[in-house]
Amino acid sequence: MKGLNPDAGTPVPELVTEIKRDLLMPSSDISFFFNPRSIAIVGASPRPDSLSRIILESLKEMGFPGKIYPVNPKYEEILGLRCYASLKDIEDTIDIAVLALPAPKVPDALLEGLGKVKGAIVVSSGFKEIGDLGKELEAELKSLAETGGIRIMGPNCLGIYDTVSKVDTFFISPERIRKPDAGGLSILTQSGSFASLIVDEIAAEGIGVARIVSYGNRVDVDESECLSFLSEDEATKVVLLYVESVNNGRSFLEAASRCSEKKPVVAVKVGKKESGARAASSHTGAVAGSYEAYRAAFRKSGIIEVDGYEELKDACKVLNAYRPGSGNRVLIITNGGGIGISIADACESRGLVVPPLSETRKVRLLEKIPPFAAAGNPIDLTGHVLDEHYAEALKEAFSGEEYDMAIVAVLWGPPLITENLVDRVKEAVEALEATGATGATEEDRHKKPVLICSPGGAFTKKLAKKFEEKGLPVFATPESAARAAAILSVKTPRARRQEKGVF
Amino acid sequence: MKGLNPDAGTPVPELVTEIKRDLLMPSSDISFFFNPRSIAIVGASPRPDSLSRIILESLKEMGFPGKIYPVNPKYEEILGLRCYASLKDIEDTIDIAVLALPAPKVPDALLEGLGKVKGAIVVSSGFKEIGDLGKELEAELKSLAETGGIRIMGPNCLGIYDTVSKVDTFFISPERIRKPDAGGLSILTQSGSFASLIVDEIAAEGIGVARIVSYGNRVDVDESECLSFLSEDEATKVVLLYVESVNNGRSFLEAASRCSEKKPVVAVKVGKKESGARAASSHTGAVAGSYEAYRAAFRKSGIIEVDGYEELKDACKVLNAYRPGSGNRVLIITNGGGIGISIADACESRGLVVPPLSETRKVRLLEKIPPFAAAGNPIDLTGHVLDEHYAEALKEAFSGEEYDMAIVAVLWGPPLITENLVDRVKEAVEALEATGATGATEEDRHKKPVLICSPGGAFTKKLAKKFEEKGLPVFATPESAARAAAILSVKTPRARRQEKGVF
Repeated sequence: MKGLNPDAGTPVPELVTEIKRDLLMPSSDISFFFNPRSIAIVGASPRPDSLSRIILESLKEMGFPGKIYPVNPKYEEILGLRCYASLKDIEDTIDIAVLALPAPKVPDALLEGLGKVKGAIVVSSGFKEIGDLGKELEAELKSLAETGGIRIMGPNCLGIYDTVSKVDTFFISPERIRKPDAGGLSILTQSGSFASLIVDEIAAEGIGVARIVSYGNRVDVDESECLSFLSEDEATKVVLLYVESVNNGRSFLEAASRCSEKKPVVAVKVGKKESGARAASSHTGAVAGSYEAYRAAFRKSGIIEVDGYEELKDACKVLNAYRPGSGNRVLIITNGGGIGISIADACESRGLVVPPLSETRKVRLLEKIPPFAAAGNPIDLTGHVLDEHYAEALKEAFSGEEYDMAIVAVLWGPPLITENLVDRVKEAVEALEATGATGATEEDRHKKPVLICSPGGAFTKKLAKKFEEKGLPVFATPESAARAAAILSVKTPRARRQEKGVF
Repeated sequence: MKGLNPDAGTPVPELVTEIKRDLLMPSSDISFFFNPRSIAIVGASPRPDSLSRIILESLKEMGFPGKIYPVNPKYEEILGLRCYASLKDIEDTIDIAVLALPAPKVPDALLEGLGKVKGAIVVSSGFKEIGDLGKELEAELKSLAETGGIRIMGPNCLGIYDTVSKVDTFFISPERIRKPDAGGLSILTQSGSFASLIVDEIAAEGIGVARIVSYGNRVDVDESECLSFLSEDEATKVVLLYVESVNNGRSFLEAASRCSEKKPVVAVKVGKKESGARAASSHTGAVAGSYEAYRAAFRKSGIIEVDGYEELKDACKVLNAYRPGSGNRVLIITNGGGIGISIADACESRGLVVPPLSETRKVRLLEKIPPFAAAGNPIDLTGHVLDEHYAEALKEAFSGEEYDMAIVAVLWGPPLITENLVDRVKEAVEALEATGATGATEEDRHKKPVLICSPGGAFTKKLAKKFEEKGLPVFATPESAARAAAILSVKTPRARRQEKGVF
């Protein structure tokens, strides 16, 4: 196949005519990337520090149930698997070929898989993002995708981390970066470093994921195609997008609108301002475009836009527990006056409202909480609070139609509360759900949201884990709780139609 | 002394005429609160869960070098200390009497110390914040302060945590709330729950404090008097204010202006919006006032205002390492394109600028960093980065006058960087300082700031500790790094005069 080397002068479109036509129709369905039966690792190496070795080990670690074919002419066997000299030597169709080679070697190696490889993930960098030489290489890849029948993810990407299909091409050291367990969150990102960062952060938070796609320079497969797949994907409950730019505005609008009809889609746009846009352009070689145009597109397609990294983390956490579309009336229950006021400030500055408690409820509640407690909104249970006061406050104030969600602030300083507080709060929430008071309908995600806000050090963090084990998400600052509440308050087009009774 | 009970009908002003006049002049100097030779604990109890027991143990734990006098007619001895039946039985002057009694008993108990007690800290709640009955009790305290010669902190407060004088009246469980070591940060707060929260958070961050005062309902001693003391206090390098309201606008402006001349003063105003202001009023019984008036006062007096709890935490961390007044031109060095862009976005949205690297420096730098790295601003060292590339980038780009501060983003995913990166960065910073390039002048706090931004999970947090041990503050999100940088960029009146050469 050396003769097929495009560097030798023969352009790719002419070469592919040598191959059987029917094998070369590129698939418009990219779902095989998320359900592969066979994976080849081209450029496989047994060296412990090599990218390919990390990928091979990750696939084993994940328990990938399909065939794995290492490819490298230098080896007979790698990690107990037969190693092939070239893609053409493998007597099987390959759903995904992972290219872990220096950029200049990638087109050649991939050409050898023509007619056999359905999809490729090119993890190598050194393409469009490095300038003219890289642009030429990337054009070769593009040509292969258009006329060679191979759908290509990347280059300059981490590829796929998928807890459903057990695929993991993220070549990141498990000693440094933890990966999350299975869950309902799926993420699409241009930036590979962002991908490795967010997996580490959400793993630390105990949030699970379905599919993460780092598509890098997106020479072929783009965010819109991935979004379309995720729309129909049952494992995906929430979609998160990290966007520097989009490939095709119209396709994106269509795909995003369809997806946001079915599940929440959250996006963060980076490269908003001058220097960021300049950097985004050099980062993946794409032009970042006007931020205002993106904002409008997000709004139009029902995407919930978040402002940056912190808000994105808040979104991951809160949408892991609740559905957005709640409305914007927040009840605040606290045992620290200052923190309650800070939460109220943070909520109101984000467009939420904190309406006072009704006089009837106030009178009833005052009989059940500590003397001198304030039955307003915030309800301040003060430093004299007991575990059960939280439950009483929730049951009395959150059982009606006055509030759309509750933020329960817990400071662990007050001496009379104990670790049982976690159970008391959980029981109160369940009791409200049982009576239908929290609006529980078809599934868990439609419950009226209760968010915990609990700032503090080591002891607080230990108890935060207990809350989260009970399915109650914990936010470590007033601002993060308010950001999460604001995300839940967003009325998506679907939520607006549901309110009107139009489904 | 039962006859002195104001409940019995004799008003306090008349009672105090019975006592020697010269002992009853209230001191306008409150510095004895921060350097007491003797402390009485009124309402002392050996019960393990009592407030007073926690205070007694804290004083011992801190190693308070003065005299400690427990007061309670029920006991002969508490924790090995002789216990007195009443303040009047103690044959010593008392610098601080801590009142840990139910609110209705406080005025009586304090009357017994007339002519002997210089200052009181009333930690009890149940005063103005609970309504009419409490208001009467509080008026009695006020009268005692005005005519009885006793300066009063509180009521409804935690009092003082002071690593200089070794005083700790914060009655919070050490199992739940950690307290910080000695350092240069001093904090004034109306809210006791805020006080216990912020000590826990900054202890977790390894930030040290000088004096923390929780003054609660401030029947007498107020924020302005405390600010005046902190202005002259050598142990205090930075002052942080948590403000729901101020007692006297004019005094506050004067005290804050004087203090901000000498050291950075940071304030957060809570109760900005409708519901928050409503809650603040019920919280310490004070009217929160118009937020706009506070903003104007902060600006006029050279106070750096922060927006909320997150920004306050960022301020604590960054002002623990650097002085504000840097200017607003930020250099960003990163090994992850996405995070670099996010930092640039976050900086620009906070009024900072991220100017491009000069062509000369760009050419020189490109020879020293990985191929395909981007020598812009951000400088993106990419996933191929080695430890020394960070040092090279800092030395080349941060040695001139083009940038006022640097944010160095470190993601630990890239395989070729090691833990030694921390030392390389520190050495580069020191090398720049040695040549005077970072503008190092009289003391550490005038260095050109280098902030680390390192988001991620457990491994990242471990390495963050290493950076902080070297005096390089670490921020866990692009937004927090940008907030910290924006705080440093604020030109205080003092910094502006220094620029003009007017001292």
